[in-house]
Amino acid sequence: MPNFVVLGAGVSGLTCALQLAKQEGNVVTVVAKHMPGDYDIEYTSPWAGANFLPMALEAGSRYERRTWPELKRLAAEVPEAGIHFQKVHVMRCKKDEPTGFRLALSDGLFAPDPWYKAVVDDYRELPASELPAHMHSGAEWTSVCINTTMYLCWLAGQCAARGVVLKRAVVGHVAEAAALAEGGGRRADVVINATGLLACRLGGVMDAAVYPARGQTVLVRNENANTMYVASGTDDGADQLCYTMTRAAGGGTILGGTYQKGNWDPNPDPNTAVAIMKRAVEAQPQLTGGRGIEGLDIIRHGVGLRPAREGGVRIEKELIDGVWVVHNYGHAGWGYQGSYGCAEHVLELVDEIVAITKSKL
Amino acid sequence: MPNFVVLGAGVSGLTCALQLAKQEGNVVTVVAKHMPGDYDIEYTSPWAGANFLPMALEAGSRYERRTWPELKRLAAEVPEAGIHFQKVHVMRCKKDEPTGFRLALSDGLFAPDPWYKAVVDDYRELPASELPAHMHSGAEWTSVCINTTMYLCWLAGQCAARGVVLKRAVVGHVAEAAALAEGGGRRADVVINATGLLACRLGGVMDAAVYPARGQTVLVRNENANTMYVASGTDDGADQLCYTMTRAAGGGTILGGTYQKGNWDPNPDPNTAVAIMKRAVEAQPQLTGGRGIEGLDIIRHGVGLRPAREGGVRIEKELIDGVWVVHNYGHAGWGYQGSYGCAEHVLELVDEIVAITKSKL
Amino acid sequence: MPNFVVLGAGVSGLTCALQLAKQEGNVVTVVAKHMPGDYDIEYTSPWAGANFLPMALEAGSRYERRTWPELKRLAAEVPEAGIHFQKVHVMRCKKDEPTGFRLALSDGLFAPDPWYKAVVDDYRELPASELPAHMHSGAEWTSVCINTTMYLCWLAGQCAARGVVLKRAVVGHVAEAAALAEGGGRRADVVINATGLLACRLGGVMDAAVYPARGQTVLVRNENANTMYVASGTDDGADQLCYTMTRAAGGGTILGGTYQKGNWDPNPDPNTAVAIMKRAVEAQPQLTGGRGIEGLDIIRHGVGLRPAREGGVRIEKELIDGVWVVHNYGHAGWGYQGSYGCAEHVLELVDEIVAITKSKL
Amino acid sequence: MPNFVVLGAGVSGLTCALQLAKQEGNVVTVVAKHMPGDYDIEYTSPWAGANFLPMALEAGSRYERRTWPELKRLAAEVPEAGIHFQKVHVMRCKKDEPTGFRLALSDGLFAPDPWYKAVVDDYRELPASELPAHMHSGAEWTSVCINTTMYLCWLAGQCAARGVVLKRAVVGHVAEAAALAEGGGRRADVVINATGLLACRLGGVMDAAVYPARGQTVLVRNENANTMYVASGTDDGADQLCYTMTRAAGGGTILGGTYQKGNWDPNPDPNTAVAIMKRAVEAQPQLTGGRGIEGLDIIRHGVGLRPAREGGVRIEKELIDGVWVVHNYGHAGWGYQGSYGCAEHVLELVDEIVAITKSKL
Repeated sequence: MPNFVVLGAGVSGLTCALQLAKQEGNVVTVVAKHMPGDYDIEYTSPWAGANFLPMALEAGSRYERRTWPELKRLAAEVPEAGIHFQKVHVMRCKKDEPTGFRLALSDGLFAPDPWYKAVVDDYRELPASELPAHMHSGAEWTSVCINTTMYLCWLAGQCAARGVVLKRAVVGHVAEAAALAEGGGRRADVVINATGLLACRLGGVMDAAVYPARGQTVLVRNENANTMYVASGTDDGADQLCYTMTRAAGGGTILGGTYQKGNWDPNPDPNTAVAIMKRAVEAQPQLTGGRGIEGLDIIRHGVGLRPAREGGVRIEKELIDGVWVVHNYGHAGWGYQGSYGCAEHVLELVDEIVAITKSKL
Repeated sequence: MPNFVVLGAGVSGLTCALQLAKQEGNVVTVVAKHMPGDYDIEYTSPWAGANFLPMALEAGSRYERRTWPELKRLAAEVPEAGIHFQKVHVMRCKKDEPTGFRLALSDGLFAPDPWYKAVVDDYRELPASELPAHMHSGAEWTSVCINTTMYLCWLAGQCAARGVVLKRAVVGHVAEAAALAEGGGRRADVVINATGLLACRLGGVMDAAVYPARGQTVLVRNENANTMYVASGTDDGADQLCYTMTRAAGGGTILGGTYQKGNWDPNPDPNTAVAIMKRAVEAQPQLTGGRGIEGLDIIRHGVGLRPAREGGVRIEKELIDGVWVVHNYGHAGWGYQGSYGCAEHVLELVDEIVAITKSKL
Repeated sequence: MPNFVVLGAGVSGLTCALQLAKQEGNVVTVVAKHMPGDYDIEYTSPWAGANFLPMALEAGSRYERRTWPELKRLAAEVPEAGIHFQKVHVMRCKKDEPTGFRLALSDGLFAPDPWYKAVVDDYRELPASELPAHMHSGAEWTSVCINTTMYLCWLAGQCAARGVVLKRAVVGHVAEAAALAEGGGRRADVVINATGLLACRLGGVMDAAVYPARGQTVLVRNENANTMYVASGTDDGADQLCYTMTRAAGGGTILGGTYQKGNWDPNPDPNTAVAIMKRAVEAQPQLTGGRGIEGLDIIRHGVGLRPAREGGVRIEKELIDGVWVVHNYGHAGWGYQGSYGCAEHVLELVDEIVAITKSKL
Repeated sequence: MPNFVVLGAGVSGLTCALQLAKQEGNVVTVVAKHMPGDYDIEYTSPWAGANFLPMALEAGSRYERRTWPELKRLAAEVPEAGIHFQKVHVMRCKKDEPTGFRLALSDGLFAPDPWYKAVVDDYRELPASELPAHMHSGAEWTSVCINTTMYLCWLAGQCAARGVVLKRAVVGHVAEAAALAEGGGRRADVVINATGLLACRLGGVMDAAVYPARGQTVLVRNENANTMYVASGTDDGADQLCYTMTRAAGGGTILGGTYQKGNWDPNPDPNTAVAIMKRAVEAQPQLTGGRGIEGLDIIRHGVGLRPAREGGVRIEKELIDGVWVVHNYGHAGWGYQGSYGCAEHVLELVDEIVAITKSKL
């Protein structure tokens, strides 16, 4: 009976734990410093928007491509998961045409003929008549928006319902995690390393390629008429973004944002907050009925540190101090929208490890 | 088809919404300034411990008595709700004997022969051999501990799964809430007022009897060996308490606390925090393996304002500006442990209103 | 050799201590929970603007009238005190004419023919040509603006230079303070009670008439062309104010504000902050060169609780548990601008006590 | 008439400005994002202890050696500056003997026969009878402790009294600062770059060798019997320190601390806070009369980011985009204790620039 420890309880860790737990016979323990319900700067998942806006280029589209069906199913059939459908307007700014509409944080989203148009149901390019003057082009389609804390709690609950034990602990070295497995004192056969930003400080990993991409947001009570918004750029600098999304189940509307590489500041910057609100109401005046940012009803200001990584996500197996580890970290801003695809890859690597291990017997 | 607006998304509001939604034909909308997943000083529910430690005297025990079966069922059968069983040690301090072991915040909990011993399954008085020297007596029985944010999200999810719409809004007057009902533009037939502490500022209510009973806590990663603890008093003043409980699903252990009437301070006081930790490790040295408070691994400090009320909870119907309102607020520290019993009473009052309304036709 | 303890190190306490220390032979100790350099919600003085904008009616104008000469002298001759001259525009809104232009927090400031026009040097009514359309009338004259932390530190320094000992301590009862006097173990002959808002919790005083009048502010780097601004009202409710002032010595510009009676919230409200900024740039567009609130460069958001009192300031002597006390608290929003006048009154009461005491010998 | 802009208003900038202003004929403007009275994580000076505990090796001792006389003079003769004398116990731990008692942050302080014993007045090695068992050796002498905000305000005041203008502004490039000089529109002849940690982000400088050395502290009301304490190490890791000092003028007692290289976290860590308090009361039980950390009366928790630099302090002249700049940054933890020595060096470099400039005419 294979025994697993998943290290980390963000969206990546919990999704892996859930998928492992769905396989009969697996014993799964989630060990984490931070858990659903927490808001801590080391714990990125609750600070995310979150939604499905593919960023990968076609060559790397597997993770997002394979995640969409499950997010769509949850939005359609499982209201208690905290996911609902929303139209999205993906806007390509004229000023960004010379760079191919590529944001610092993403490549594929703003592509004029994106791979994901074949994946989602109702992709259409917006006609010129529906575009503001400063926009080169844009597209509309139906995506989802996720109430992050509600979804994280739902994931944790689904794990619990399948017998996963969730255990609060701080682990100094990735191999130590194996000893924290439930199930009669046996060490875990495999540790899934889903530690996100903390992978840069975790013993046995200490991945120097991991860095924060700081995202500041404003959560407001105003709603944006069921249409999410994202633009390929802003006038306020390369690390300043403009996007909005209304979370399911009364979760409020996220106004974003920033993508500040290497910036660890956990506190909201008051001037950045004003700029974010200004961009949002300019892009979607209906948020406040044309009353400007004074019409926003702020719930709170937020900061999350996207767990970015030079070289991109790391999903691979490694034997560390005698413990098999499958890494799954470095998702930057696409952790939710790639979560099921990445978990699928993790389970493939787990199968490889099981095969290797058995062959040695 | 009766149409309801529940004003407030704490444990009281969500439980009422869920129970209403379980009745076929009801249309239910939850309207709230704060929602599950939020941490705001105006929103008490996530800051609670929470558990089942009855406080009522026998005469007023209906709400808690009628809540226990459902909490027990959830702990036993619905792991995704974030509730688990824990033993509790209820300790009566020798120094509190002259006052009948009554805390400021509770009457019945420390009674030597409590009504609830017939309600829970395994109540037993502790023999002298199991008591510390400064304890007059104590009891042990199996209660539950609730991971509050996980449970609030689960309640919201259960509502959503039954068609309840959760809507974020700030309402100035209780009668305005009726206009926010879903369901084709009809006004709500009844508004459930579950606004907690905010009932003191809500138009049409402005209940001057409502006041905060400030509770400061420390959430730690340490676990208390599956045994919750609560004492009838402390040496640090009448508004200082001592209790611990480990939340389900890796939610950490709450160390409490305080009961500071009329104190609105939303920020943790650093000296109170040290005193809380000291009392907790003295009562349960196993929390840190005898290493004192330096062995605690603090997740965060917290403050919640219990929505207390002179005269106790208010569950009654009232016609306000032509809108039928059922009040359900003023639960102080027993909101979770009385939630299903109070909702039952609310539904009875709703039935009375329906009867009155029909008789007028 | 008379021996004094001044309880409290806000502007009221330090000014009294300084004036006492200037009298030869006095031994003075300042005992305080909070000291210059601190920012704590219990310690109002650093959160003030501060400036000289008389609020008293003529009958009660003594304290402000007697303070102006010293503030003017410091601005002119003592640059290290952190006070500089600024023009002020006092604006009477047309909409406030029916109420005689009286703000909740003040009576005399907006009087059309104020007593203080004979006190300041260059008072002039503004001609219609210099008034915005929604203003009934206005006046211009030269006042001062105080860099509060710099001035509090300067006061503390002047005390220290005259031998005053500043001692950090928390006192439970006003009479206990007498025992904390320096000077060879003697108890103080007189305690000056300058505890501000804390007077409502101080043993022996417990003044239930004291309440907070919460003021929220935004401190920005922008400067307002050397002209302070204050209006008799706003469109945002009776507890919302509009004023600006640029502090001396690079202290930034304070944008205000609010006057929220009975509100103890120590944390800035984000929506109030936006409203304050909007009102300020509408009143003084030059703050951001016409760029709106996005042109503000926010240093920080702030909250101070003005120590208000039903019945007004309390300056009187009282024998408490055998200790002579002179009270000097309840200044609401005019603590700085009445500081020297109040200290003068305190010293008169001290003289009365000395006379009484001697006569008993 | 030479015209100077000093960029930065920490202790380094203000000391340079003051010394420049003392030279007849100089026009000096201080331009800074943060000013005395502020608490901001980018502004290190108020978060410092501060005191005089030399860290340099003898070869590099100039800055500290030349600063001591002025700090001593201020403590003796200028009480309003907020500096007072305190004994210090410098303790060398037995466990640190193998490494020569060298802390990460310092070299010379714990030297058994330090250069500074000839500089201070009353250095003596402690006899074994005065040492705790785990100490190898120790020394006692009279140093000073500085109330940082009071001293920064005093420095600003002394500048103002000598005609220095203090101007709040954010500068993107060091050469832009020259245009902000007071004095009739002339550009500054020399810019003093005293930007501390911000030197890593300042246009024209962008010094990648600058990094934070995070220091967490606890400020308490307890006093340590007039004896500062510092030990060569702790049992809690190389980045954990133990020192205490009581600030002048009721400024409270600083308990330290940490020296965490590369850590930008501006928020106090609650577990680190407990550890700091525990070490302090173990080292100086008299702080709480033997009552442990529960006897501490916490004023607040703090974090400052020492502006450290690979290669050490940078004091040198450079012509940047046509503007002469004298750098004075990278002081890590010795900014106060080297302030006058560094300013002296800065003035020498200014003289060199003046000579160069004149020779070109």
